[in-house]
Amino acid sequence: MLSKAQNKHIRSLAQQKFRDQHRQFVAEGHKIATEWLSGPAPITMVVATNQWLKENASLLTGRPNVAVIEAAESDMAAISQLKSAPSVLVVVSYPEQGLFSFDSGWCIALDGIQDPGNLGTIIRIADWFGVKSVLCSMDCVDAYNHKVVQGAMGSHLRVDVRKVDLAATLSNAGVPLYVASLSGTSVYDTRGVLPGVLVIGSEGRGVSPEVLGLGGQLITIPRIGEAESLNAAVSTGILCSWLVPR
Amino acid sequence: MLSKAQNKHIRSLAQQKFRDQHRQFVAEGHKIATEWLSGPAPITMVVATNQWLKENASLLTGRPNVAVIEAAESDMAAISQLKSAPSVLVVVSYPEQGLFSFDSGWCIALDGIQDPGNLGTIIRIADWFGVKSVLCSMDCVDAYNHKVVQGAMGSHLRVDVRKVDLAATLSNAGVPLYVASLSGTSVYDTRGVLPGVLVIGSEGRGVSPEVLGLGGQLITIPRIGEAESLNAAVSTGILCSWLVPR
Repeated sequence: MLSKAQNKHIRSLAQQKFRDQHRQFVAEGHKIATEWLSGPAPITMVVATNQWLKENASLLTGRPNVAVIEAAESDMAAISQLKSAPSVLVVVSYPEQGLFSFDSGWCIALDGIQDPGNLGTIIRIADWFGVKSVLCSMDCVDAYNHKVVQGAMGSHLRVDVRKVDLAATLSNAGVPLYVASLSGTSVYDTRGVLPGVLVIGSEGRGVSPEVLGLGGQLITIPRIGEAESLNAAVSTGILCSWLVPR
Repeated sequence: MLSKAQNKHIRSLAQQKFRDQHRQFVAEGHKIATEWLSGPAPITMVVATNQWLKENASLLTGRPNVAVIEAAESDMAAISQLKSAPSVLVVVSYPEQGLFSFDSGWCIALDGIQDPGNLGTIIRIADWFGVKSVLCSMDCVDAYNHKVVQGAMGSHLRVDVRKVDLAATLSNAGVPLYVASLSGTSVYDTRGVLPGVLVIGSEGRGVSPEVLGLGGQLITIPRIGEAESLNAAVSTGILCSWLVPR
């Protein structure tokens, strides 16, 4: 059964300072748990109802490093950050990250994304288009925030997401920078571009002056109607579809 | 000042049954209020703080049919559905809708979209790409739900959003149907297609059998990486960018 200390530990991971201290985050729900348990994900703990454990016992065999804890539904509700308590929740170690390199194809760089739903969706977009890494400026929402993890639907462990001093990192990229903008070259006219970094600005204020100052190519999605802007995640998806598969 | 009856009326509009009964919905915040007040939007009431009314008085002159009500910040907090109370909130009549026609270019049809954030974002995408109408199946989230309105950021009054019996309506469309799917023709290979209806399925179960049975062309966004799916709004944006501007 779930101990008081375990209950407290899991609930503490709702806060970034405790996630960073323990280098662990939480993901909830059957879909993400079964997907990650089927692979080499660095899962340290599985907390689940008796029924879930019975039905998914095969996923847990041969995983001696995973602590498996049965919890009452009331305990699941207490430790869950979802409105309706899931049947399973996993505690996962931060993925190991080696030195970062711009040599492995396309990269997405996020300059101040605030909305956790947008960041989760963008990590999922990166995973869909085979983009291996997402660089986040220091003022982006934390990538292990609960809503980001749930929104990314499992993509966290396939995409290298890391927080960096964005302007400094991009200034040494050595590959082309393509900066999403409300003006610039139409993305429909970008044929045969070289792989590089797709830079997406924050929801409210776009790309910061420091990053704009690096002189990347401004790329725009031409507007036909009257909306003032497109959502940041939608823009990222559209730009990836035109740039990445070439 | 805001009366008790007005307070109660505005709060009642958080529920679809009262919105439908009064044919009115609520939109919050300076951006959307000023945008709509600058045009011919069917606004019936503006509730705002003293300071907002002072600073935006010019928007309210020559609008004799708009009731303007000053409210204390505590009243704004009581009637708002946002976490932090806005300085202004408007009550808007449902737009007048004439007979629907498929003759006016591209149309987006949503088959069971559940997430209000997705629906709001899709209405904004339609507005960006000049798509004049969004048809929603009867089981879609209500288009005047608070989160939908805030997510669409003002696009509700430029895009004709209506709830219909989707399969019956599409069966008489007389224009091509393009159905978003995990398999089918790559959207990158659809050159010179005729304007028609872009059909997007629900987040969980995709397009319903009734709508699939109408025999539209299945269109897919080829996957390069490993994510199981793309977000419904992101898919809509990508497909619009490839289909609509042609």
